[in-house]
Amino acid sequence: MVRSRVVLVADLVGTAVFAIEGAGVAMRAGLDLLGVLVLSFIVALGGGILRDLLIGATPPSALRDWRYPVLAFVAGLITFLLHAQMDAIPPGLMTVLDAAGLAVFAVAGAEKAVEFDISPLSAVLMGAITGCGGGVIRDLLLTRVPMVLNADIYATAALLGAAAVVAGRRFGYPPAPAAMAGFALCFGLRLVAVHYGWHLPRVA
Amino acid sequence: MVRSRVVLVADLVGTAVFAIEGAGVAMRAGLDLLGVLVLSFIVALGGGILRDLLIGATPPSALRDWRYPVLAFVAGLITFLLHAQMDAIPPGLMTVLDAAGLAVFAVAGAEKAVEFDISPLSAVLMGAITGCGGGVIRDLLLTRVPMVLNADIYATAALLGAAAVVAGRRFGYPPAPAAMAGFALCFGLRLVAVHYGWHLPRVA
Amino acid sequence: MVRSRVVLVADLVGTAVFAIEGAGVAMRAGLDLLGVLVLSFIVALGGGILRDLLIGATPPSALRDWRYPVLAFVAGLITFLLHAQMDAIPPGLMTVLDAAGLAVFAVAGAEKAVEFDISPLSAVLMGAITGCGGGVIRDLLLTRVPMVLNADIYATAALLGAAAVVAGRRFGYPPAPAAMAGFALCFGLRLVAVHYGWHLPRVA
Repeated sequence: MVRSRVVLVADLVGTAVFAIEGAGVAMRAGLDLLGVLVLSFIVALGGGILRDLLIGATPPSALRDWRYPVLAFVAGLITFLLHAQMDAIPPGLMTVLDAAGLAVFAVAGAEKAVEFDISPLSAVLMGAITGCGGGVIRDLLLTRVPMVLNADIYATAALLGAAAVVAGRRFGYPPAPAAMAGFALCFGLRLVAVHYGWHLPRVA
Repeated sequence: MVRSRVVLVADLVGTAVFAIEGAGVAMRAGLDLLGVLVLSFIVALGGGILRDLLIGATPPSALRDWRYPVLAFVAGLITFLLHAQMDAIPPGLMTVLDAAGLAVFAVAGAEKAVEFDISPLSAVLMGAITGCGGGVIRDLLLTRVPMVLNADIYATAALLGAAAVVAGRRFGYPPAPAAMAGFALCFGLRLVAVHYGWHLPRVA
Repeated sequence: MVRSRVVLVADLVGTAVFAIEGAGVAMRAGLDLLGVLVLSFIVALGGGILRDLLIGATPPSALRDWRYPVLAFVAGLITFLLHAQMDAIPPGLMTVLDAAGLAVFAVAGAEKAVEFDISPLSAVLMGAITGCGGGVIRDLLLTRVPMVLNADIYATAALLGAAAVVAGRRFGYPPAPAAMAGFALCFGLRLVAVHYGWHLPRVA
């Protein structure tokens, strides 16, 4: 009871944060109001929609429940209208909120995916896709190589958080502590990586 | 009876117009014959296929009914073979035909989507995706920021036309007048916007 | 019995070859380790996943069977770790292996697609998408116009190989010779086209 309310609030906060970020990127790329709203929708909900298509959970939950698109559009519209004030949000706060949104989405995505007929490895991938997929579609629409393939520890944090959830489920742990462990792992690793400027290796 | 024939003819005309436009863009981008046929297919049928994937109507109707891909490929092939003559089509005529195709697809997409287990808001979005999705995939394949996110009143017209259909359904109007109202709204708004050079606002 | 083992081995070899190619492209594009693994996965399995989404076979088989993603990730990781040695593989050998992978995927994709509720024409398209779809997604992620729309005889070979399989099925031939004919047609045409530098026509 308490837990489902915590999960709902976390999910809505993550959706709003990602929508605000999508709107900001769209405005900086010179898109018009429609483009801003489309990017709010896609950054907030694209990862979950992609996951639902892949696991066969169609129509995706973001299209069945009107509250998620409305929240994304409203967050995008407010960002558009108040863009001067939005610039005043400290970047550090957005980084923390973004890391929280990533962790919420990765955990929730893995939790949903393990209920479907896919391998545990794929359930971990679905968690990462839930967290990162919206940003990948955003980058494709703006004709940029997806940031996540190229820059610091982002998808990696989502993968580890999702892996904690899937491993917890496999080894019979109760869902709530497994979800909290996954959230802490993803959120913590992401913030530590930003703080210390950690990157994955690449070939020179 | 008469209506279903009108709808079928409108749908086939829209498919052919969009396929011709896709082939033209592909040739101007320097693609080979295969690329021209792929873009004819995608511009004509990509929006409907994307809608069907999203609402869970798989396999998409464009893959079940062979007449739609054949029509798209034939229209693309003719455009390729007669490209010199195609350039003689007045741009104004293509704009009118394109607006008609957009309106037909937006209305038909919304009509199909409301039959599925999604929210009315999502049904409106599906109408716009049916009309604009093929062009978005075209732009992604050519590594261009989708025109629709950035330029004049196009997706907006599709959204309004689809909204008229969904609203008509919700408030119990008979389908035919609702579809005609949606068509007129999308087609009319699109042409008026082109004529007066209307754009959506953007942040400077 | 023997045949199913041959098919399994061919499928695994095709997956590994495509994963190695994906990793090589990712490293040359400057992606980090995560990007290398993502491109290995997508080039190897993206075509089959796209086909399964389109025909309604969800969740896609590559997400249900853990062996395919593991093989793709291991092949990508080895390519990353041994990249200096990988450069020593003669390009001619990679071209032959790639043509074999393309032919295996096109044949297997068409064989699977004909079991679903789509037209024979669409089954041929699904064979080509199985063979070429991973490369198209790779190019989109790297913001390049898909090579397949633009360069020599590649998708065309996949289409012909898939068409042989679908035609064989329609005219009642036993599956094994139809598959072998489709493989030979795709593999042979691809290599002959590379050797003679054949291209499809384009508008000047």
